[in-house]
Amino acid sequence: MEPPEFTLTAGPTMASHRVLQALGSPIIFDYDPVFLEHFRDTERKLAEVMRTDGDVVLMQGEAVLGLEAAARGLVRPGLRALNLVSGVYAAWFGDWLRAYGADVIEHTVPYDEAIDTADVARLLDDNDGIELVALVHSETPSGVENPLAEIGPLAHRHGALMLADIVSSLAGADVRIDDWHVDLAVAGPQKCLAGPPGMSLISVSERAWQAMADNPTAPRGSFLSLLDWKHTWIDGGRVAFPYTPSVSDVNGVNAALSEVLDSGGVDASVARHALAARATRAGVRGLGLELWPKSDDYAANCVTAVRAPEGIDIPSTLLHIRDRYGVMLSGGYGDLKEKLFRLGHMGPASRSLNPLVAVGAFGRGLADLGADVNVGAGTEAVLAVLSEAHAGEAARA
Amino acid sequence: MEPPEFTLTAGPTMASHRVLQALGSPIIFDYDPVFLEHFRDTERKLAEVMRTDGDVVLMQGEAVLGLEAAARGLVRPGLRALNLVSGVYAAWFGDWLRAYGADVIEHTVPYDEAIDTADVARLLDDNDGIELVALVHSETPSGVENPLAEIGPLAHRHGALMLADIVSSLAGADVRIDDWHVDLAVAGPQKCLAGPPGMSLISVSERAWQAMADNPTAPRGSFLSLLDWKHTWIDGGRVAFPYTPSVSDVNGVNAALSEVLDSGGVDASVARHALAARATRAGVRGLGLELWPKSDDYAANCVTAVRAPEGIDIPSTLLHIRDRYGVMLSGGYGDLKEKLFRLGHMGPASRSLNPLVAVGAFGRGLADLGADVNVGAGTEAVLAVLSEAHAGEAARA
Amino acid sequence: MEPPEFTLTAGPTMASHRVLQALGSPIIFDYDPVFLEHFRDTERKLAEVMRTDGDVVLMQGEAVLGLEAAARGLVRPGLRALNLVSGVYAAWFGDWLRAYGADVIEHTVPYDEAIDTADVARLLDDNDGIELVALVHSETPSGVENPLAEIGPLAHRHGALMLADIVSSLAGADVRIDDWHVDLAVAGPQKCLAGPPGMSLISVSERAWQAMADNPTAPRGSFLSLLDWKHTWIDGGRVAFPYTPSVSDVNGVNAALSEVLDSGGVDASVARHALAARATRAGVRGLGLELWPKSDDYAANCVTAVRAPEGIDIPSTLLHIRDRYGVMLSGGYGDLKEKLFRLGHMGPASRSLNPLVAVGAFGRGLADLGADVNVGAGTEAVLAVLSEAHAGEAARA
Amino acid sequence: MEPPEFTLTAGPTMASHRVLQALGSPIIFDYDPVFLEHFRDTERKLAEVMRTDGDVVLMQGEAVLGLEAAARGLVRPGLRALNLVSGVYAAWFGDWLRAYGADVIEHTVPYDEAIDTADVARLLDDNDGIELVALVHSETPSGVENPLAEIGPLAHRHGALMLADIVSSLAGADVRIDDWHVDLAVAGPQKCLAGPPGMSLISVSERAWQAMADNPTAPRGSFLSLLDWKHTWIDGGRVAFPYTPSVSDVNGVNAALSEVLDSGGVDASVARHALAARATRAGVRGLGLELWPKSDDYAANCVTAVRAPEGIDIPSTLLHIRDRYGVMLSGGYGDLKEKLFRLGHMGPASRSLNPLVAVGAFGRGLADLGADVNVGAGTEAVLAVLSEAHAGEAARA
Repeated sequence: MEPPEFTLTAGPTMASHRVLQALGSPIIFDYDPVFLEHFRDTERKLAEVMRTDGDVVLMQGEAVLGLEAAARGLVRPGLRALNLVSGVYAAWFGDWLRAYGADVIEHTVPYDEAIDTADVARLLDDNDGIELVALVHSETPSGVENPLAEIGPLAHRHGALMLADIVSSLAGADVRIDDWHVDLAVAGPQKCLAGPPGMSLISVSERAWQAMADNPTAPRGSFLSLLDWKHTWIDGGRVAFPYTPSVSDVNGVNAALSEVLDSGGVDASVARHALAARATRAGVRGLGLELWPKSDDYAANCVTAVRAPEGIDIPSTLLHIRDRYGVMLSGGYGDLKEKLFRLGHMGPASRSLNPLVAVGAFGRGLADLGADVNVGAGTEAVLAVLSEAHAGEAARA
Repeated sequence: MEPPEFTLTAGPTMASHRVLQALGSPIIFDYDPVFLEHFRDTERKLAEVMRTDGDVVLMQGEAVLGLEAAARGLVRPGLRALNLVSGVYAAWFGDWLRAYGADVIEHTVPYDEAIDTADVARLLDDNDGIELVALVHSETPSGVENPLAEIGPLAHRHGALMLADIVSSLAGADVRIDDWHVDLAVAGPQKCLAGPPGMSLISVSERAWQAMADNPTAPRGSFLSLLDWKHTWIDGGRVAFPYTPSVSDVNGVNAALSEVLDSGGVDASVARHALAARATRAGVRGLGLELWPKSDDYAANCVTAVRAPEGIDIPSTLLHIRDRYGVMLSGGYGDLKEKLFRLGHMGPASRSLNPLVAVGAFGRGLADLGADVNVGAGTEAVLAVLSEAHAGEAARA
Repeated sequence: MEPPEFTLTAGPTMASHRVLQALGSPIIFDYDPVFLEHFRDTERKLAEVMRTDGDVVLMQGEAVLGLEAAARGLVRPGLRALNLVSGVYAAWFGDWLRAYGADVIEHTVPYDEAIDTADVARLLDDNDGIELVALVHSETPSGVENPLAEIGPLAHRHGALMLADIVSSLAGADVRIDDWHVDLAVAGPQKCLAGPPGMSLISVSERAWQAMADNPTAPRGSFLSLLDWKHTWIDGGRVAFPYTPSVSDVNGVNAALSEVLDSGGVDASVARHALAARATRAGVRGLGLELWPKSDDYAANCVTAVRAPEGIDIPSTLLHIRDRYGVMLSGGYGDLKEKLFRLGHMGPASRSLNPLVAVGAFGRGLADLGADVNVGAGTEAVLAVLSEAHAGEAARA
Repeated sequence: MEPPEFTLTAGPTMASHRVLQALGSPIIFDYDPVFLEHFRDTERKLAEVMRTDGDVVLMQGEAVLGLEAAARGLVRPGLRALNLVSGVYAAWFGDWLRAYGADVIEHTVPYDEAIDTADVARLLDDNDGIELVALVHSETPSGVENPLAEIGPLAHRHGALMLADIVSSLAGADVRIDDWHVDLAVAGPQKCLAGPPGMSLISVSERAWQAMADNPTAPRGSFLSLLDWKHTWIDGGRVAFPYTPSVSDVNGVNAALSEVLDSGGVDASVARHALAARATRAGVRGLGLELWPKSDDYAANCVTAVRAPEGIDIPSTLLHIRDRYGVMLSGGYGDLKEKLFRLGHMGPASRSLNPLVAVGAFGRGLADLGADVNVGAGTEAVLAVLSEAHAGEAARA
C-alpha cells in the first residue's frame, strides 16, 4: 500500500518541504556550538510565536508529555483546581489532576459547545481559593475552541494559575501568553505549526516556576521534570541540557516556527487557518451535512468536525476515501469515536485548495457509500469562500 | 513571492518525494562502479518502460537536445522525409529537417485535430521513396495525440524510418517502440514520468544506427552526437562515457522510471493518466467551457487544452489563479499562446484529486474575472468520473 | 559559525544519508494504515537487531526516558536490587533505584575498569533474594564495556531480573537479549545505530512484564508507562497507540535498523565497530597517549576514551580542533568531565577512514597546543590496523 | 556494492548537504514567476563569482557542451586561432577549432608543464592577425594551471578574443573575467563549485557576442546556440527561455554559488582550495612519491596529480583503495590514463581533513600493494601544512 497523496487529518499533519528538509539535515553533536545556538534560537522563535517574554521549554516527547509534566509540576496534594471540560482532552486532564492529588472542581459542558466565561466567573466567585484553572484552548477531538482570552485574565484576577492546553491552537488561533496571563501553556508542533510530532513546546511564567519550586511532589531528576530544565539549562546559562535533545526534532521545530514568522507572521498564519476553516464549514454545509459544534462562534480553526450521517460507518468510509481518492481524513477520538468525521486544515493543509480536496473527497466518498450529499454545492461553496476572501494574501500567506 | 502549492502545468511538472530524494542523493564519481551500474540499470528500466529490446541512450539536456540529435543524425542532404504536422512542435521539427537538407513533404492538419492514418497511407503510396516519417505522438502545446500505433507500422511497411517525438506521451499514453516499429524515439523525463527536466531519453533501432553510421553529416565528436554514445559507451561495453553524465539527473530519472515500474507498471501509469484526463475533460465541460481538441478520440492524456473564453486575458488569469489559489496552470505555447489554457495531469498531478484542484482553481479563477462558468458543475463532474471509474486501483496505482 | 565537517563524538553521531532521507520523508497520519504497518515493521527489525523473540517497545524520548520508565516500572518499594557500577551512568541509575524505594546493594569498581563477573557471582551468592540486577553494558562516558554475556545468565540462574542499559552497545557490540536472559534492555538510536536521537528502544521479557503488572507503583496512564504500551498497543493487537508516536523519528529509526540489517547484518556491524575501535586505540597509542580503560579487554567499541595529557585544557582543546580542523570530538562527562577526551566511532563514524580523521585531528590539535605527541606514528598506526584487518568486508560492511 | 564514503576525485565531486537539498527541492514550472526570478538570481551570483559585469549564460549540459557551443559560435572558416596546449583538454579543443574551419597555430608544451607567457607573447608578435587565443586555465587531467591572468590581457592587447576553459578553476583558483579581458569563459559546476554535474556556466563579452553575431556558421536554432540564449532570453528581457532549463540543476547551481558567496566569498574559497592543494602536495611528497607537475608554481588547486610508481597498476589500485578504505580517487585521463593518480580537493573535499583522508588512503593503499611509501610521514605532512596555515579561517571558510 502507498501513502496517501493528501493527509488532511487532525494531526500529525503534512509538513512543508522546508520542515522536511530541516528534519533531514545532518545530525550534529548536541554540545556543538552551532547546535547550542540553534536550540536557543528555537526558544526565541517559540517565545515570539507564543507572544511571551517569559521562559519557554522545549521538551522531547509529544504534547502529552508536556501536559503530564505540567500537571505533575503544578499539582501538589490538596491543590484546589478548577477543570473546565468541553471535550475529551479536558476530561482526561481532570483524571490526571485528581490522580496527583488535586481537589478538583470540574465544570463540564456538552462536547459540541464551548465553555462560557460567565460560568467560569461564577465558579471562581463561588469557590474560594481556587489555585489553578485548567482549560483546553482548542479541543482537537471535536473542533471546539474555548475563550482562553477571557478565562486567562479572569483566573489571574482571582489569583489562580492559568494552565492551558494550546496543543492545536498555537499558530492556528490567536494565542497571547503574556497578555492573557497564561502561566503554563503546552503546544504541539505537529498541529498548526506543521512540524514533527515529537516535542512539547511549553511556556512557563515566573509564578508557575515558583509554584513548582514550592511543590515537593513536582518531578525532579526525571524526564518529566520541568524543573530539571530550569535548573540545568535556564539557570545554568543555557549551556547544558538535562537530557539529550533530539537534534533532528529541534531542527524541524525551528523550521516550522521560522516558516510561520517568515510567511507574514503569526497573524497571517491565524488568518489563513481561519479562512480555511470557514471555507471548509461552508463546504460541509454545502454538502448538506451538519457541523459538530453547535455554533460557528466557537468552531475551531484547526479541524472541522462533522456529525456522521445516519447509517454511515466511519472507519470503512475513511478507508474508502483513502483508497479511491488518495485522501486521508480523521474520524472521531475517544468518546466521540463513533460520532464524527474531522477534516483537518492545519499547516500546509490550510493553504491553497486543500480545503477543496478535503470537502471533495469527503462528499464524494460519502455519496459513493449512499449518503445523500450535494457534491457540487459543497465544492462550489468552498471555492466561493476562498474567492470572497479577496484574499490572495491570506490564502497564500 | 512563494512557490505555488500545486504545479499543474504542461511541464516541468511536480515530482514525487521519491524522485526529489533521488535528486538530492550524494553525488559520486561518474566512474565509480556503483554509478556505472546505476547508469546501466537506468537504461534497462527505460527500455522496459519504452517496451523495447533495442538500444536506449540517455543524453543530457532536455528533450529538444535529443530531437536535434536525432534529426541531425538521421537527415543527410536530400533525404526524402514526410513530416506530419498537427501542432507547434511538429512544425518546428520540419524547420530542422529542412535546415539539415532533407527534401520534406509536409502534411499539416489544423492544430485541434489529429493526423489521420489514411492520409499518411495515401501520402506514402503517392510519394515513392520516402525514407523518413516524422511524427509528434502527443502535442503538448495543444493536448492532441496522434496515432503512432498505426503510423509506425505503416512507415515500416513502406521501408521508411519512423522518428517519433514521445516527449510527453511516454508513461502517460501507450507507447510500444518495438511492436510499432519506431526507429528513433525521444522522450522527456519531466512530463508523465515526472522526473527532472534535464535529459533526453532516446531509443534507437538497428536500422536507425545504420542510417546514422551511413550519414556523413551525422554529428560525431559533438555533444549532439548519438554516434558518440554508440561508439564509446555501447560498443565499448558500457564502461566509458563520451561525456560526463549528470549524476544527479540520472539518479532522478532512475527513480522516476522505478516509480512507474513499482506502481503497477506502465499499463497502470497509462490508465491513471487516461482517467485524470477524462476527469479533467468532464470538469471543463461541466464548467461550461470548450475543449481545444475537436474530438475526445485524440485528446491527450498528458494535458487538457481548453479554448480561452472570449475576453479573457490568459497571462493575467494565470497569475490571478496562482496568486489567489496557489495553483499554477499553463497557457498556450508558440502559435497557440493567445488561444488556450492547459491543465496538466502528468505524474503526481495525475494522482488523487489533483484534477479537482486544477478544475476548481481554473473555474473559480475565471469566474472571479467575470467569465460565465458553473464552478459547482465542473468540480462535481471531475469527482463523478473519478468515482465511476470504480478504480481505486487506477486512481492510486 | 558553520557546523563541523566531521562529528566524531560520543553521540549524537553523524547519521547516514539514508537515515537523513527517512527523517525528511513526508509526515503522514499516525493512524494511516501505511504508518501502522511501518511502526510494526520497525518493531520487527528492532527485535531482529536485539536478537529477541520477545516484545519490544518504541517509546518516544531519548534513552533516559526508557531507563526511567524501566526503573519505575520494575522497582517497587523494598525490591532487593544489585546495582553494578563501573561508570557515571550506572551510578546515576543507582540514585533512581533508591529514589523509587529499592533496597540497593551497590558494587562499584574504578571507572577505568569493568565489572568482574566473579564478583557478581559472589555477591549473588552472599545476598539472598536479589530480585533485580542492573548493569550498564557499555559506559559511554568512559568507553568501558561490561560482561553482560556472563552476568545476564548469572542473574537468571539466581532468579533475578536482568536490567541492562545497552544504549551505546546495540549494533556496536554483541548483544543477545534472549540468549543472555536480559529481561529489560534499553537502547538508544543515536549511538551505534546512528539514527535520530529521539527515542528509547526497549525489550521486555514476559517476566519483566509480569513484574511490572504486579508492581502497584509502576507508572500507568503516564508518558513514562511501559504498561500503557502493553495494554493499548500490544494487547490491543497493535492498532492503537497510547500516545502519538513521532512519525519522523520512527521513519529515522526504521532506516537505521534497516541499514544495519541490509549491510551484512548485526555481526558485520559489530565487527566494523570493533575494527574502528581497535584502529583508534592503536592510533592513540601511536600518538603516545594513554587510553582510559586499563585493559583493551574491556575497551568499548563505541568510543575510545583517552586520558587528557597534563596541562591540557579539555574544552579549549576541543574548540581548537573544531575550529582549525572542522572535527568535533567529545570531552568527558559527569565526574569524568575534566579527565578525558573521547573519540567516537559509531555508525558512519566507524566506517572508512573516519578513525584516521579522529586521531589526526586529535593528535595535531594537541600538538598545536604544546602537547608532546607523535602525529605521524598515530595516523600511521590507524591505517596499519585497518589494512591488516585485510577486511574490505568489515571496513565497508 | 555500496557507494564510497569519500569521493575525492577529479570530479564530479561530493556536494554539500545544502547543494543536495537544493537539488531535491520541489520542481516547479519553468515559467513560474518564482523560478524566473531564481534563474536571474543564479545568473547574478554566477557573474559575481566570475567577477564580471558582462553577460553570463547558463546552458544545460556538462561543460563540454558549453565549450563546443563556444567554439562553434566563435569559429568561422578561416579564423586565425592560437591554441595553447599543456594538456589533454586543450589538445581536444584544438581538434574542434580545426574541425570548424579555423586556421590554428598550436603551441604545445609537455603535459607536466604550464604555458609560458613569454612564448605566447612571442607567438602573438610573430603571427599577425591572430583573432582568437584559446587556453585551458586549469588542466584537470594533469593538475596543471596556466597563467590566464597574464595571457588574457596579452591577447586583448593584440586584438584577439580570449577564450578560456575555466571548468575546474572557477572558485578554486583566482578568476577575473573582466580584469583579465576574458571574452568567453566556460566553467563547470561539478568541480570547485561542487554543484551538480549538469550545466555549462558561461561568460560572454560584448566583443564575443559581436563575433558570434557576425559568424554565419555560429549555431542558431540549436541546442548548441549561445545566440539563441542572447536573442530569446537576454534581449527579450529575461522572461522567455529558448529551451526548458533544468529546474533542479539550476536549484543546485544556485545553492553552490550561494555557498561560495556566503562562506567568506570567492577569495576565501580560493584560499581554501590552495591550502588543501598545498597540504596534499606535502602529503604526497611525505609519502615519498613524485608529483606530476614539474613545479609547484603551476600545480593546480583543484586536483593533485601524482606520477604512478613503477610497477603499480592504476585501475586495480584505485579499486583496492575504494574497497578496503571506502575512498574513491581518480586515475589519469586520455593520454595520461596510464601515468598518474589524481587526488581531488574540490568543494567539500577541500575542507577539513579530507586531504588527510586522500593521502592516507592513497599511501596506505599503495603500501598494501607493495609500493615503497612512508605512510606516517605523508599523513603527518598533510596535518603540518594545515596546522601551519594558522588558518582556522581558511580551513573552515
